[in-house]
Amino acid sequence: MAMDGYRGFLALLVSALLVGFLSVIFTLVWVLHYREGLGWDGSSLEFNWHPVLVVTGFVFIQGIAIIVYRLPWTWKCSKLLMKCIHAGLNAVAAILAIISLVAVFDFHNALNIPNMYSLHSWVGLAVVIFYMLQLLTGFLIFLLPWAPLSLRAFLMPIHVRSGVLIFGTVIATVLMGVTEKLLFALKNPAYSTLPPEGVFANVLGLLVLVFGALICWIVTTPKWKRPKEPNLTLLQPNGGTPERVEGSLAVNFSKTDKSDSELNDETAARKRNVALDEAAQRSTM
Amino acid sequence: MAMDGYRGFLALLVSALLVGFLSVIFTLVWVLHYREGLGWDGSSLEFNWHPVLVVTGFVFIQGIAIIVYRLPWTWKCSKLLMKCIHAGLNAVAAILAIISLVAVFDFHNALNIPNMYSLHSWVGLAVVIFYMLQLLTGFLIFLLPWAPLSLRAFLMPIHVRSGVLIFGTVIATVLMGVTEKLLFALKNPAYSTLPPEGVFANVLGLLVLVFGALICWIVTTPKWKRPKEPNLTLLQPNGGTPERVEGSLAVNFSKTDKSDSELNDETAARKRNVALDEAAQRSTM
Repeated sequence: MAMDGYRGFLALLVSALLVGFLSVIFTLVWVLHYREGLGWDGSSLEFNWHPVLVVTGFVFIQGIAIIVYRLPWTWKCSKLLMKCIHAGLNAVAAILAIISLVAVFDFHNALNIPNMYSLHSWVGLAVVIFYMLQLLTGFLIFLLPWAPLSLRAFLMPIHVRSGVLIFGTVIATVLMGVTEKLLFALKNPAYSTLPPEGVFANVLGLLVLVFGALICWIVTTPKWKRPKEPNLTLLQPNGGTPERVEGSLAVNFSKTDKSDSELNDETAARKRNVALDEAAQRSTM
Repeated sequence: MAMDGYRGFLALLVSALLVGFLSVIFTLVWVLHYREGLGWDGSSLEFNWHPVLVVTGFVFIQGIAIIVYRLPWTWKCSKLLMKCIHAGLNAVAAILAIISLVAVFDFHNALNIPNMYSLHSWVGLAVVIFYMLQLLTGFLIFLLPWAPLSLRAFLMPIHVRSGVLIFGTVIATVLMGVTEKLLFALKNPAYSTLPPEGVFANVLGLLVLVFGALICWIVTTPKWKRPKEPNLTLLQPNGGTPERVEGSLAVNFSKTDKSDSELNDETAARKRNVALDEAAQRSTM
């Protein structure tokens, strides 16, 4: 299926993948080369899983999960399959984020370092909780089949905007985390003398920021939205070409109501479900 | 003019104004009560202008500038007046941001503290430069009358998305700045013991984050966009009701091209200018 502005999309997508991949590599090099490496023994080796898992899961995988509907090569796949991929990637990101929290609490407790005092920890814990709620509501409302259609339609724009805000907050939290770690760890030579590790971790921060910006750019460009499902033509009372739905849920509601009489019960309900999902998603960004 | 979802908009707007105002008040209380106060003598009193000016100008005023087109009470005002207000508020924010940089460089130089080593300073300087470029291109392309229409139409979606990304980056930079300052300043008692100043500045960080989230929510909700100018009906070749433009610039281009023959030169150009401005802006978020 042709995509409007395909070359621009491809350029941004390749850049995002490259920058995201580089962010993960930079994090690994930071902990393996500049820090003590990785382990699970309550020492700083265990702490080092925190940045690795956060940048891999909570930044890179979450970023890919956000834009997965926009990949034109997936537009032939069923919406249900794409939802499963979106939810699956987000679930993996959530698991890695939780393990990353366990690593940092373990490390703090083993060394009697207080937990939850910094702004980084406050925002970080809050964003993990919001992310879990987002994942749970997404699963209950959009993946399982029994949520009322009106609820799906009402919640989809909120789901999309909340998702992007959570992702942006994760990026901000990572930047705070890098700042904290460098101020704690770089004493001799000090961070203020900008030693190689300082430059390296600053560049890591920039990479994470640029990755976040690229993902947000891709997901807020209306022309790169996944098109409506072809079978939605069934929903047009006169069998005409379906109109594009852009922020006009009310129109779609009335159309689907009218077409009910032309479709038999179960099929109609399923088709209407797909239509409302599409309409709700397209009514966002 | 009626706004769709007016109560929701009003609730978010009042919350944003309240949280933004509280952020400014919290910053003032932080520097006046917990820190040494304000001055312009190269000491930490001069540094303290940095957070005050950033939160007042670069966060609060920029946030208001971003949503100013969405205030329904301004929809009767001319687009040119609104552009002037948008540009004026952003110009004030830019001036305050630059003075805030002067304050911190002055302070560093007076005390022989190195400049530009932290991630906060790298991202902060970058975002001020991008903001100035955004302001300059906005002024040259959208406020002055001589930019080609095609260029305006092409750049408007980029201008809007860049603006929101810059604003988000400013929020992230403030959170890094609060983190840095608390780690530098709170030694006895240490930040890790969470003294009152630590709690207070953490809450300030949360307020700034929530303000940013509210502004982003308001500006990415399609139904709260400023409606098209009423005089755009002139642009319809058959005098019909103008269609809403949502991500369909190409359609608008062809419409305006067709209508050229029906309008005389100068009026046509001005009307087309307004139409393209509107179309371009509505093709964004």
